[in-house]
Amino acid sequence: MKIGLDALGGDHAPESTIVGALKALAELSLEDRIVLFGDEEDCKRRIQEAGGDSSKFDFCHAPENISMHEHPTKAVVQKPNSSISKGFSYLQEGKIDSFASAGNTGAMLVGSMFTIKTIPGVLRPAIATVVPKLKNGSGLLLDVGANADCKPEMLNQFAVLGSLYCQHVAGIDNPKVGLINIGEEEEKGNHLTIASYALMKENEKINFIGNAEGRELFTEYADVYICDGYTGNVILKLAESFYVATLKKGFKDDFFDRFNYERYGGTPILGVNAPVIVGHGISSPKAIKNMLLLSRDMVKSNYVDKIRSAFN
Amino acid sequence: MKIGLDALGGDHAPESTIVGALKALAELSLEDRIVLFGDEEDCKRRIQEAGGDSSKFDFCHAPENISMHEHPTKAVVQKPNSSISKGFSYLQEGKIDSFASAGNTGAMLVGSMFTIKTIPGVLRPAIATVVPKLKNGSGLLLDVGANADCKPEMLNQFAVLGSLYCQHVAGIDNPKVGLINIGEEEEKGNHLTIASYALMKENEKINFIGNAEGRELFTEYADVYICDGYTGNVILKLAESFYVATLKKGFKDDFFDRFNYERYGGTPILGVNAPVIVGHGISSPKAIKNMLLLSRDMVKSNYVDKIRSAFN
Repeated sequence: MKIGLDALGGDHAPESTIVGALKALAELSLEDRIVLFGDEEDCKRRIQEAGGDSSKFDFCHAPENISMHEHPTKAVVQKPNSSISKGFSYLQEGKIDSFASAGNTGAMLVGSMFTIKTIPGVLRPAIATVVPKLKNGSGLLLDVGANADCKPEMLNQFAVLGSLYCQHVAGIDNPKVGLINIGEEEEKGNHLTIASYALMKENEKINFIGNAEGRELFTEYADVYICDGYTGNVILKLAESFYVATLKKGFKDDFFDRFNYERYGGTPILGVNAPVIVGHGISSPKAIKNMLLLSRDMVKSNYVDKIRSAFN
Repeated sequence: MKIGLDALGGDHAPESTIVGALKALAELSLEDRIVLFGDEEDCKRRIQEAGGDSSKFDFCHAPENISMHEHPTKAVVQKPNSSISKGFSYLQEGKIDSFASAGNTGAMLVGSMFTIKTIPGVLRPAIATVVPKLKNGSGLLLDVGANADCKPEMLNQFAVLGSLYCQHVAGIDNPKVGLINIGEEEEKGNHLTIASYALMKENEKINFIGNAEGRELFTEYADVYICDGYTGNVILKLAESFYVATLKKGFKDDFFDRFNYERYGGTPILGVNAPVIVGHGISSPKAIKNMLLLSRDMVKSNYVDKIRSAFN
């Protein structure tokens, strides 16, 4: 398979991306190749400097970068030679099997929707993030920012996107789905969650177990936690700040360690026609490596086909 | 002043409430009296057993209890002799200056709105909670559950309710107000926050400093954090679960210690015609004591009058 990586994406790129790609290469099988999108000569030079062999990589020359603060839609349209735009062109043409970037999340989302597009039947793609469980293992939370406003039908679909991801990529059998809410009872919540509950309990494609309060996110209660992108983004950044606080205080613990984004590499955009993964802006080489391994796992799992079948 | 306490409210009541009331009495001045709502004979017996003097308290015989799982509106209407219903009758009649309970939050909210009522001009009361800051001191987050669905006008008013609370009860001069959102820029957010931002930046009664992301909640960024009650409740319970996790792991630290609800005693219902405070269900005697001292501080500050003037 061909795994695409935006060599220019991320606060520490291209150093972090090149070193990360080299680390990933060492763990990939021989038939898997990483395709680097960036300044080709610069990438080759950096690979050599890091002691690597650039003949082990494929390249797509894309010298322009979309920075973190550019307007996603404008940037994707106005910078056809950017690493993100080129990556999506390749993905659309089938020249790569997946595309990952630690760059501008909005541009990755726009690029996905403009080129490879949303899977027919899926109302809106969602961004999912891993949430560690206190005991061990982890769950999935979505949406964490792709859709600030949601309709109940969207939340009901996110449940399917997340369940199939947990099942086929994370290897969790019959994953339990919880709806993030402010009370356990069916009638509790805001307009969105009350209406979503009604849809989710009738949805035969998921194992819906009911409402999940904020305190249940890190427990064994569910495997997939569903909410709108506004709430999910607030949760994600709040949890991250708590993790950072434990780090600063010098607390070491397996549970808190599992908040480290480096372990997961990135957050997938679910519901689009190919595996697309967005990394944290501050991605280290380790995070980039894991983002590439997650790309491989998503391709291998045929996750996208499972979604196509589910929404067929 | 007369400080009302629901002696039957809370998982550990009436033991916790009686012991907590005795602890508070030791810190109140002589002209302040605590009025206990519950089974009068039982309260007196327990005070004596704890080595106290029941003549130092006033009593209102209210033998019925509204349990945690009762439907708030039904319970308040159908149980006029319950400690919560009696408490609000007294508050309405001016026989007490404030009322606090670690019992059914919904019943406390319904009781407030049915008896003492919302202050004219205030669209909806809000429940506020203290959020500790990493450095030191603390901020305020509202709404944390009174209003699952909000309109921009409500969030704009919560900012005033919270600012005046910070100023007059918590003693923070010119408190900074942040809107919980998913991006720093004015145009970021969901429909609710975008529309709320537009109102808040024109609101001359508050010191609005813009959007606050989830990661900023524990920083010096703002003093008052505003969101709808669904989001606030999710944040509150998530933060609490994180705090509980640090406790279980044996991490001791001043910042995490300041998540302990016992320190604050309870969360006030803001925007109603008298000081009303709701305690955590698991309130210990220490929490009850601090809830009574917070009641005193709210009465002393004339917070309710400040709100009446602001909305006049």
